[in-house]
Amino acid sequence: MGVVVAFEASEGREPNINRLITLVEQDMERVNEAILAHAHSHVEMIPELAGHLVNSGGKRLRPMLTIAAAQMGGYEGLHHIRLATAVEFMHTATLLHDDVVDESDLRRGRKTARLIWGNQASVLVGDYLLGQAFKMMVETKSLEALRILSGAAAVIAEGEVLQLAASNDTTTTEDAYLEVIGAKTAALFAAASEVGAVVADRPQDEQAALSSYGRNLGVAFQLVDDALDYSGKQSLLGKTVGDDFREGKITLPVVLSYRRGSQDEREFWKRTLENGEQSDDDLQIAFALMEKHQAIVDTIDRARHYGAIARDALAIFPESEHKTALLEAIEFCISRVH
Amino acid sequence: MGVVVAFEASEGREPNINRLITLVEQDMERVNEAILAHAHSHVEMIPELAGHLVNSGGKRLRPMLTIAAAQMGGYEGLHHIRLATAVEFMHTATLLHDDVVDESDLRRGRKTARLIWGNQASVLVGDYLLGQAFKMMVETKSLEALRILSGAAAVIAEGEVLQLAASNDTTTTEDAYLEVIGAKTAALFAAASEVGAVVADRPQDEQAALSSYGRNLGVAFQLVDDALDYSGKQSLLGKTVGDDFREGKITLPVVLSYRRGSQDEREFWKRTLENGEQSDDDLQIAFALMEKHQAIVDTIDRARHYGAIARDALAIFPESEHKTALLEAIEFCISRVH
Repeated sequence: MGVVVAFEASEGREPNINRLITLVEQDMERVNEAILAHAHSHVEMIPELAGHLVNSGGKRLRPMLTIAAAQMGGYEGLHHIRLATAVEFMHTATLLHDDVVDESDLRRGRKTARLIWGNQASVLVGDYLLGQAFKMMVETKSLEALRILSGAAAVIAEGEVLQLAASNDTTTTEDAYLEVIGAKTAALFAAASEVGAVVADRPQDEQAALSSYGRNLGVAFQLVDDALDYSGKQSLLGKTVGDDFREGKITLPVVLSYRRGSQDEREFWKRTLENGEQSDDDLQIAFALMEKHQAIVDTIDRARHYGAIARDALAIFPESEHKTALLEAIEFCISRVH
Repeated sequence: MGVVVAFEASEGREPNINRLITLVEQDMERVNEAILAHAHSHVEMIPELAGHLVNSGGKRLRPMLTIAAAQMGGYEGLHHIRLATAVEFMHTATLLHDDVVDESDLRRGRKTARLIWGNQASVLVGDYLLGQAFKMMVETKSLEALRILSGAAAVIAEGEVLQLAASNDTTTTEDAYLEVIGAKTAALFAAASEVGAVVADRPQDEQAALSSYGRNLGVAFQLVDDALDYSGKQSLLGKTVGDDFREGKITLPVVLSYRRGSQDEREFWKRTLENGEQSDDDLQIAFALMEKHQAIVDTIDRARHYGAIARDALAIFPESEHKTALLEAIEFCISRVH
């Protein structure tokens, strides 16, 4: 689970997430065990498909937030393991359903579950993982954690429907786009962080602070993800450049390029993304238009704005190793793009 | 919501469900209001699609069980409304995902949501309704009800995956088939009934009795449903005869016909259901084979067996209007076929 690197708190170093990884390492091993245990079923397809997802090489940032927040709150029980596992299952269920809805063939450079096992299995195993997630939450007997995470589940699904309804609309405003990612991505980051404080029985202001940290970190994370999809560095992360473009997804780099563009340029975006008529050169043209309008640079700039809010949300906490690690995680998420 | 008919307790009358409907009528109106309120969203597609389902003309048997069980336990609060609504949302979410997985075009003689709004919306709105269901359960603050219903959610999804993996296999045994419908249908009937006793704070033996009642009623209900699909009476219920056959579904009438049939007959079932090669006359041949092997009559006979267990499960309760109504519901479910 990563190499432990001792270094001074953000002193002229490349931002990295090693401190966070080290702090949560032991508990994350328990989360991994819980994931495997709860994806167990005598229905063979379930552990098979779940295993594929578990080994997908994701960083598991969301459950790490739950663990780190609980540890920062001095929690010493085991319920944070259950909540972190539930958070990862909710996320995994969303990915399974997303890939079906988006008809995606690749995720992180690997075939999607739907391509291997089919759309039907992906829908149903997603439902199964969601059911398991709720079972684990109930085991913690924390009604507050249940309230927060079930609320997030409804918001996430609502955000997905919203995105579906608005999909391929190049005239989407930045506000509307932020609403979508606020629901699709940031809601689970917020809930994941908040329930860590809840399980540690921390006061309301700390719960709210962690919720705000998670929400803004989530927005920043998603914006950087959107920028990465048009960046050469993408391939280093095991992803393909231009996936969003090929799928006609309207993300902030597109929103900015469209709004700042000429009438001809807007026709280009409409043709390629709304009408889905793309030729071989179009991705290169998209890159050029984004460069011309500074769309990638400004998307990262927007991400920095939300990163700053996340940073300030943590200001009420006294200095600690965990606080430093959570702050470094913000920098890490944003710096992925450079 | 049905006509109120006063009649003597099951004295030589056609079995009907009017007593149950009358007892729960007021509370079911509140459930209907809660359904509409919680399917509300500023994302237009959600209330639209939910409205389609809400007006689908289903009897809402599952939430009626929750209400009736809570009333029988003397419950006087409002949490049973929330649980009943959550149960109906769980059921609706399952239908939405089922229709996507089965590629169904019609349900109760109406176009399915996936045909009108697409598979993508059906998957996502299903997720949304599931999220809303959990939010409502959490509002009741009953960890026991949450445990029971989240357990049912996982079991239902597991059953769906099981069915998918075993689909079109004509050599399915009756046991294996019962396992599927135990998970797919009976688990929610059981949970719906049990949480009514839980919310009324009734003792463990009554909770277990209602869970057993619901489970066995659910099995009987599903078996009769399977028989109806090959029965002329089906059209009276707004359904099409032979849907299961056309979709290659292996239900008990097929399991019995296959096992009791000659080698030639087994080849017929393999060709039509496993390989999906059907010609115009095949449904009539299927009818004839089922008639020959008494497959429909015996499927109903099996349903009666589970109905009897459901009846005995209720024996520990003192006589009451509610108990009579729940017993009549068993007869009603089974007699739908005659």
